[in-house]
Amino acid sequence: MPVIVETVRSTVLAGNPMGDPAERRVPVYLPPDYETATTRRYPVLYFLAGFSGGGVYVLNELMWGETLPQRVDRLIRSGAVPPLIVVIADCLTRLGGSQYINSAATGRYEDHLIDELVPFIDDRFRTRTDRDHRVVMGKSSGGYGATVLAMRHPDLFGIAVDHSGDKYFELCYRADIPASVAALARYEGSAARFLAGFPHPPTERGRHWFTLVNMLAMASCYSPNDAAPVGCDLPFDEHTAELRPAVWNRWLAHDPVELVAAHADALRSLRLYWLDCGRWDEHHLQYGNRIFTSRLRDLSIAHTYEEFDGGHTNVAHRYDVSLRALSTVLGDG
Amino acid sequence: MPVIVETVRSTVLAGNPMGDPAERRVPVYLPPDYETATTRRYPVLYFLAGFSGGGVYVLNELMWGETLPQRVDRLIRSGAVPPLIVVIADCLTRLGGSQYINSAATGRYEDHLIDELVPFIDDRFRTRTDRDHRVVMGKSSGGYGATVLAMRHPDLFGIAVDHSGDKYFELCYRADIPASVAALARYEGSAARFLAGFPHPPTERGRHWFTLVNMLAMASCYSPNDAAPVGCDLPFDEHTAELRPAVWNRWLAHDPVELVAAHADALRSLRLYWLDCGRWDEHHLQYGNRIFTSRLRDLSIAHTYEEFDGGHTNVAHRYDVSLRALSTVLGDG
Amino acid sequence: MPVIVETVRSTVLAGNPMGDPAERRVPVYLPPDYETATTRRYPVLYFLAGFSGGGVYVLNELMWGETLPQRVDRLIRSGAVPPLIVVIADCLTRLGGSQYINSAATGRYEDHLIDELVPFIDDRFRTRTDRDHRVVMGKSSGGYGATVLAMRHPDLFGIAVDHSGDKYFELCYRADIPASVAALARYEGSAARFLAGFPHPPTERGRHWFTLVNMLAMASCYSPNDAAPVGCDLPFDEHTAELRPAVWNRWLAHDPVELVAAHADALRSLRLYWLDCGRWDEHHLQYGNRIFTSRLRDLSIAHTYEEFDGGHTNVAHRYDVSLRALSTVLGDG
Amino acid sequence: MPVIVETVRSTVLAGNPMGDPAERRVPVYLPPDYETATTRRYPVLYFLAGFSGGGVYVLNELMWGETLPQRVDRLIRSGAVPPLIVVIADCLTRLGGSQYINSAATGRYEDHLIDELVPFIDDRFRTRTDRDHRVVMGKSSGGYGATVLAMRHPDLFGIAVDHSGDKYFELCYRADIPASVAALARYEGSAARFLAGFPHPPTERGRHWFTLVNMLAMASCYSPNDAAPVGCDLPFDEHTAELRPAVWNRWLAHDPVELVAAHADALRSLRLYWLDCGRWDEHHLQYGNRIFTSRLRDLSIAHTYEEFDGGHTNVAHRYDVSLRALSTVLGDG
Repeated sequence: MPVIVETVRSTVLAGNPMGDPAERRVPVYLPPDYETATTRRYPVLYFLAGFSGGGVYVLNELMWGETLPQRVDRLIRSGAVPPLIVVIADCLTRLGGSQYINSAATGRYEDHLIDELVPFIDDRFRTRTDRDHRVVMGKSSGGYGATVLAMRHPDLFGIAVDHSGDKYFELCYRADIPASVAALARYEGSAARFLAGFPHPPTERGRHWFTLVNMLAMASCYSPNDAAPVGCDLPFDEHTAELRPAVWNRWLAHDPVELVAAHADALRSLRLYWLDCGRWDEHHLQYGNRIFTSRLRDLSIAHTYEEFDGGHTNVAHRYDVSLRALSTVLGDG
Repeated sequence: MPVIVETVRSTVLAGNPMGDPAERRVPVYLPPDYETATTRRYPVLYFLAGFSGGGVYVLNELMWGETLPQRVDRLIRSGAVPPLIVVIADCLTRLGGSQYINSAATGRYEDHLIDELVPFIDDRFRTRTDRDHRVVMGKSSGGYGATVLAMRHPDLFGIAVDHSGDKYFELCYRADIPASVAALARYEGSAARFLAGFPHPPTERGRHWFTLVNMLAMASCYSPNDAAPVGCDLPFDEHTAELRPAVWNRWLAHDPVELVAAHADALRSLRLYWLDCGRWDEHHLQYGNRIFTSRLRDLSIAHTYEEFDGGHTNVAHRYDVSLRALSTVLGDG
Repeated sequence: MPVIVETVRSTVLAGNPMGDPAERRVPVYLPPDYETATTRRYPVLYFLAGFSGGGVYVLNELMWGETLPQRVDRLIRSGAVPPLIVVIADCLTRLGGSQYINSAATGRYEDHLIDELVPFIDDRFRTRTDRDHRVVMGKSSGGYGATVLAMRHPDLFGIAVDHSGDKYFELCYRADIPASVAALARYEGSAARFLAGFPHPPTERGRHWFTLVNMLAMASCYSPNDAAPVGCDLPFDEHTAELRPAVWNRWLAHDPVELVAAHADALRSLRLYWLDCGRWDEHHLQYGNRIFTSRLRDLSIAHTYEEFDGGHTNVAHRYDVSLRALSTVLGDG
Repeated sequence: MPVIVETVRSTVLAGNPMGDPAERRVPVYLPPDYETATTRRYPVLYFLAGFSGGGVYVLNELMWGETLPQRVDRLIRSGAVPPLIVVIADCLTRLGGSQYINSAATGRYEDHLIDELVPFIDDRFRTRTDRDHRVVMGKSSGGYGATVLAMRHPDLFGIAVDHSGDKYFELCYRADIPASVAALARYEGSAARFLAGFPHPPTERGRHWFTLVNMLAMASCYSPNDAAPVGCDLPFDEHTAELRPAVWNRWLAHDPVELVAAHADALRSLRLYWLDCGRWDEHHLQYGNRIFTSRLRDLSIAHTYEEFDGGHTNVAHRYDVSLRALSTVLGDG
């Protein structure tokens, strides 16, 4: 199964505030007949991984499961999915993720993806370069990315797949504030103190460590602030957990639930807009997706939304469902 | 140990919307020398129990602990607390509580307490009737009651004790919305359907049952609505969990964090304002109390606030601490 | 609804090792027509409460539920259950329970119940005194009691009802050893140190407090030892959690799963032997009851066993089911 | 950082019962000066990963942490640990692990490691081939492996490091029986039915899935049975959870707590025997390790045992501690 790890030298990420690499390692899966059907061009699927994932991490071997390339390969070989190229974007930051958007605190990851990665891939591989054959698909933070990129780049993406994507920040992030404050208490309430040693080995991780990292990463994406000690503002008081409305409103400006009305035309233009969520998602995303899809209905935006028996993890088997749905719009590729 | 259960016939509660009794059974604890010191008058402490408690329920025998009268009796006999009368208010509703305030959906419980119960007690027992010797004390919902009654009735209460009281609704109640929606799902999202069988025996109680009851009770206190099928509005969509801002703002108008500025003079006039909260309160009330007491500091309102190693339950031992503190302002009673 | 709280002066409990009262307060529920049908005699049901319950605690008012007398009264008045007398045994110890058996560490509670309480009730009330009209029923530890008393006293009890009763100690108690060791660690591994302050108010209760109390109570019932500092042996090492097989074997000798073969005739003689358990009982009792009832089948002991959707708590609604089943054997009472 | 993935063609694993590969991919880390100091020979550390790990999985990139080779490389370069070769054994089975022992149900993994892998490495690399410079180290199931291989092969291993190793099966595995039965219930209690689809993608994993897989894997190691439908016996009844003593005794025969006395001389001969465990290990292994090290003390077997604030996961930082301890016996390598 051919997977090539390309190195993409980014201009827009050079000198990014977090000191993350400007050279990105991007795995590219090529379909079985790529080498033999030498004139054939293929649809391309950009896969946006969830928080703390993406790039070569997606290639990590799994004891009892498939990597994404293995899964896609099985589905293509079985005929369930037309041959396509899969590109695993690498928009990771040292805090775990960029949400695939630009931010003064993390870097211009949306620009990187749109202006650098897509042309790079179209240049390097025999892709079909029209929007009708370019898919953006992701899970969790990557589902968020898929939806917002589809909103903002209808010229590029004609198909979007959003698995368990972040939506309705009033629940999905806000519910994590108490745990984040509890985790910060071990650092005297100071994010700067926490990040000073981050992620220096050997590392001990106390309770709610991951929740705190996620919260700080989201702050770096949604509420950057040059003047703040950690480059961004937290939307709550570190000691009392009181919401800071001015910061919080900056977060809400990025919430798909808020964004949807202004981008209705873009979403309406999609050939396929496919979403799902687990019925007992631990981050309450089933509610965010219900709210969002009710907005879609109100705005007459065609879409498919499935709610399944499951939570937020161990849901890679759901990719089988969405990938199979692609065949309805991609035909034979 | 003399505890008399008085029956108080309420006028203001007659014909209340929930059909709860207008006759209230109110336990009254009398100090050891009440029968012998026949001319002595005593300070009075009004105890406001937490959600789903109050009145005769406070007399329920405990396997490994004291009822409130037993606790007070021990402390008085040991000399740690001056002799005083303790009145256990009964402001329960069929949904578990009135928050000790008036509401068109539950009844006029604040009026009952202020205009009926206090005069009844002063008439029936040898009380000291000045505010300096009248204490309002409560826990959880009762802590909420103690704080708001102290705000609104400085003429009556000169001392307030608030244990783990509800504050900063943005966390303490709002965090319960997803669980409430999950519980409602068993009733097709209909509060009316849930309440139709409430609390009919035999009763099975699914997951989050208690959270849902609490949420409905709070709605009955904070957002009554004659026109609604269940007499009040829920501050969220029953299916998507989306906040209903107009309803939620009605809740916030009852939040001590919001109320405090307008009642600063009343709180400033207290001889003792004593509050505490567990450091890992399951309802996040430590944060609400931190926010509230920071407001108190900003407003130069004298108070004592203690945070202790503990959660929201099994904290009756904290009453020993607050009751002992009373001796500093009550002297010998 | 007539409930009389009788005081039973026990001879066998006088001077018991734990210093628990020899005078027992025993609530007795009388059926609606008891006062008017002055020559009628009634079946008697002895109710054995679960751990940390029994006696007057069963009368504690419940916010959203019925006390046992209220439940029985409703069922009798509706005609679903024939009129009967219900006696709430009080076999509590300061550690929370005697399992309704004799022990050198707790006292002779089985003797008290059999030799003192039953004659007392038959003497005081218009009971039917044949075994065919005497029921022993209990829940959890009381279910255990119902089953072992039915095994050992077929002359007295012709009907037994065992709700979620303790069985297969290899799971139900043994699984609690790690948590018990964790709780003991706060007392330097010393049960004596823990019990020195037990249950002195004000009381703080750390994690697993209840599990530890239950474990010590069971040790007082199953492995008494005069020579041990706390009057009984723990079946595990307080620091390493290693099982002490000699002590553990003494526990197993009390396990219904072990006892059943030797008492098959007694159980076979029952007119009705009714058991149930929740399908996800937190103490794994569904497994113990499956094992036990498979033994019953092997021994051709007629019985009814129901497994229901539920756990170990909030299962009082199940009493409706068992009480209704009594009518099949009691007829009109 | 040089890591070579060797392919080891095993004879003893050929035709193993589970159909697992006989060719094993074994990562080998070489110290920084390996290429330049061309005559230098190095100590070798055999690393045995925990359940569901080992081999190339250990090379999986981590978002916020080091792979084992990265960790060792950092420590060697800093001078904290002498240069050494690290070999990541691959003794995985399709069920997640062999416990590094021979079993008729899985294959002869101990023989593979001892008779094939060690000679292969000594042949291929410039190793020091005396026992004094050969280390066996592992975590969890690999800690188990390290201890039992040190017991049985003192000629090969002079140093053993056991992190959070499986011990005292009476707690660490037995406590998982109820959850395993619960997971099996989704397959009508049939392990064969569960394994029929194992691990076929797309895979949904219900509650306790991982516990059940672990239990079946341990059964394949400890109680193989050709005649059983799944090649091994479960030590409990699939429906009632009742222990099967005959099977369980076969498990206990593999428990380090049981094995230690017979292998005291081998353990006594170790130059360093280093163990640790988290104080709140989720699998109760702190207790097993306390019991085991008390046996070591009784048998005058020198060892170091550390208990640290932590659980069973996220403990790779503990390898820094044990690896540093190696320098005391390895000197400069």
